[in-house]
Amino acid sequence: MGSKLTKRAEDYSKWYNELVVKADLAENSGVRGMMVIKPYGYAIWEKMQAELDRMFKETGHENAYFPLLIPKSYFSKEASHVEGFAKECAVVTHYRLKNDEDGKIVVDENAKLEEELIIRPTSETIIWDSYRRWIQSYRDLPLLINQWANVMRWEMRTRLFLRTAEFLWQEGHTAHETKAEAIEEAQKMQGVYADFSENFMAMPVIKGTKTESERFAGALDTYTIEAMMQDGKALQAGTSHFLGQNFAKAFDVKYTTREGKQDYVWATSWGVSTRLMGALVMSHSDDYGLVLPPKLAPIQVVIVPIYRNDEQLQQLNERIGELTKELRSKGISVKYDNRTTYKPGWKFAEYELKGVPLRIAMGPRDLENNTAELARRDTLEKENISQDVLVTRIETLMVEIQENLFKKALDFRDGLITEVDNFEDFKEVLNTKGGFISAHWDGTTETEEKIKSSTKATIRCMPLDAKLEEGECVFSGKKSQKRVLFAKAY
Amino acid sequence: MGSKLTKRAEDYSKWYNELVVKADLAENSGVRGMMVIKPYGYAIWEKMQAELDRMFKETGHENAYFPLLIPKSYFSKEASHVEGFAKECAVVTHYRLKNDEDGKIVVDENAKLEEELIIRPTSETIIWDSYRRWIQSYRDLPLLINQWANVMRWEMRTRLFLRTAEFLWQEGHTAHETKAEAIEEAQKMQGVYADFSENFMAMPVIKGTKTESERFAGALDTYTIEAMMQDGKALQAGTSHFLGQNFAKAFDVKYTTREGKQDYVWATSWGVSTRLMGALVMSHSDDYGLVLPPKLAPIQVVIVPIYRNDEQLQQLNERIGELTKELRSKGISVKYDNRTTYKPGWKFAEYELKGVPLRIAMGPRDLENNTAELARRDTLEKENISQDVLVTRIETLMVEIQENLFKKALDFRDGLITEVDNFEDFKEVLNTKGGFISAHWDGTTETEEKIKSSTKATIRCMPLDAKLEEGECVFSGKKSQKRVLFAKAY
Repeated sequence: MGSKLTKRAEDYSKWYNELVVKADLAENSGVRGMMVIKPYGYAIWEKMQAELDRMFKETGHENAYFPLLIPKSYFSKEASHVEGFAKECAVVTHYRLKNDEDGKIVVDENAKLEEELIIRPTSETIIWDSYRRWIQSYRDLPLLINQWANVMRWEMRTRLFLRTAEFLWQEGHTAHETKAEAIEEAQKMQGVYADFSENFMAMPVIKGTKTESERFAGALDTYTIEAMMQDGKALQAGTSHFLGQNFAKAFDVKYTTREGKQDYVWATSWGVSTRLMGALVMSHSDDYGLVLPPKLAPIQVVIVPIYRNDEQLQQLNERIGELTKELRSKGISVKYDNRTTYKPGWKFAEYELKGVPLRIAMGPRDLENNTAELARRDTLEKENISQDVLVTRIETLMVEIQENLFKKALDFRDGLITEVDNFEDFKEVLNTKGGFISAHWDGTTETEEKIKSSTKATIRCMPLDAKLEEGECVFSGKKSQKRVLFAKAY
Repeated sequence: MGSKLTKRAEDYSKWYNELVVKADLAENSGVRGMMVIKPYGYAIWEKMQAELDRMFKETGHENAYFPLLIPKSYFSKEASHVEGFAKECAVVTHYRLKNDEDGKIVVDENAKLEEELIIRPTSETIIWDSYRRWIQSYRDLPLLINQWANVMRWEMRTRLFLRTAEFLWQEGHTAHETKAEAIEEAQKMQGVYADFSENFMAMPVIKGTKTESERFAGALDTYTIEAMMQDGKALQAGTSHFLGQNFAKAFDVKYTTREGKQDYVWATSWGVSTRLMGALVMSHSDDYGLVLPPKLAPIQVVIVPIYRNDEQLQQLNERIGELTKELRSKGISVKYDNRTTYKPGWKFAEYELKGVPLRIAMGPRDLENNTAELARRDTLEKENISQDVLVTRIETLMVEIQENLFKKALDFRDGLITEVDNFEDFKEVLNTKGGFISAHWDGTTETEEKIKSSTKATIRCMPLDAKLEEGECVFSGKKSQKRVLFAKAY
């Protein structure tokens, strides 16, 4: 524990870095840009995985596993793909170490690979190489596969969870008979991601498509969900790509159609990563520490006994033992922290820091009066209630806290969408208020680039629900039909 | 489907290779020694993971995640460890590709790493580098961590699941205050592995310790579970290591004891891998295909409708729809395969190949007579029973099949443990009957090596339950107190 957190208002970035480490989510390892995900952080990631995995399976997907290493030649087969990823690849060149004359461990130059292998930055190429063997006929379609894996992108500037050289993710890769079906799949998975973000992470997102310059390398269309962090910067939380027939052509994946002809299949890919952990932290947490939504909290309720002597602790152990059992039978994850090595005040601060949604304190007087003290992490409010209604109240609060976190984040986000109609206002809003700027854009990459280079704001997405509206590009003054969302982004 | 499987008696090794591919468990990728785990195979692995993960958590362990890449210098810190692993390491030397003058993608020589990074063959070194930061006091102990991850060992000869360059596994890494506690942990996890093997995989194992020459590189003691495959060769299914203070000393992990002194912590590590998939296949499967124990079968019951026309199919869909729902409510995983693109005979063969424990066939006459046909995969027996008792019977059969597979494998294994008392018999049994040979050994590495080089048999383990018995080493004639188990092994 020790020192307090930096406040968000003081230095948001420092607050985030400190919080991730102090709340035991993750830390930097001795390897450049690579993090260690600590048990408490990993427990949250496991909860995310479990829900997402269930959602993928409910939408007909199966898991599989493909090799970590990709031959350089595979990687080069799809031109725009390699262009997008070649600059940040970890390359395996040798397969053995040896002792040199001084007994030092060195790379064995005799064990040089004929062809270099790349640690996957994403698996389209190795997976499509398999799909060529798996797909013969329309009967083999759709092929709906997901992979949970680690991937590697040699980022120059890294930050825990948000941008790390190695990260954990899932990547869906599907193949379809028709273009329409592939587009439908890509949109469906965008919907799954939005559902997960809003209903489990309690993080509102805007669904949209990316502009050409922000698309995935090799995609014809990228569907995105964009979230707003507490510092007014946007965060891309998940993307789903319509890949057309690009990878099918690059890897020669043809199938016999229902009409007996040969055609290339249509593809999608989609992914979310441990970056969501960063988004979760930055959506809800405060100057006291993490704030976790009950649906993703490894510990939903913590119970701390208050006592002066062993006899009192004994009595509390008994009563709280029963309570714990009852709560667990309702599917609530409870921790009873009766360690004698730490004082109640220390424990209160610890679980506040770790974002446990609900804290219960119980002392000898509570036993006498049949009461307990509840403290909500989201509002920091306390209430004293009868033990008779304790379990029901806790069940209700699990739902209330989840909803309250979403509502709070939604109100905050909605307050940070500002319509502007000229470039002066654009810059003014961007530099003072921040958030999403809803503005007309002429649809050209040229304008997009100019706005980016002069303001650092990028087009986060073209919202799916944007309404038709006559307007003029905020930068070029050219005609435009719909507003898009600009923001500075993680 | 297509061609039939090679028979086990003809060519066991070929049978295995064919079966793994034809049953859609895994296949070789285009990358040397690396496999693709296909959805059906991965579904079995997921079931294994879920049970093991539950068992680890029930014994107090938490999951975490550590970097894929390990700096060469970390790797070299524990002398016997690097000795054991350096020969088979994938080495990352560069972090960027570029286009050369001809536009070809090549490694960018300007992006050479100052220190080479090794793809983890196991994670002791990177994890103990973290533990130095995590462990200060006895209050931080025991530290009980597990990681689910991919690892890489550059094996020269590879076989699907049994020996692949990349494989999936879990690795537990724990730190303790005392030697006794660490030894207890290593033994406990050996027990968890044995429990899992016997009660989920239905695969009997012998618990024992490894001889010095067969120990993990860096361990003071290796606890193993050894299984017997149908061809009379042993397979090491899981190991748990007592590491003493070797890694604590190499990475300077000291803690303040209860008495206020500084001491090095005591360590264990333990792991099982996708190799268990190979063991599962080779324990139970037959000349018709896979045989899966119900507790690990992705599909426990498959239902195939037999019909001549749409009306009949319609009626069957209705009845079987109800049945499917009822079975699922009992927690049984059911597939109803009413695809019209395939005939019943094809489906029967397909699910036989895939090892589905129980097949139900139902036709119009069954609807009239209120009956169904059950076919067990383990015994290939069929029975016609009333639909009134169908669900109960299926529930019972799930248990019976699981038990029968274990019993069958146990009888087989027990029949393949032969006590021998001289080297002639040793060689004779090894080359005719195979299996485990229970023999006296003088305890020296020299004798062990001589037996190995002349017969290819290794000491699989010194069984935990070996009884004290005066005897003479089967090779040297020197005195011995206990028998050990020799075998040829995977």
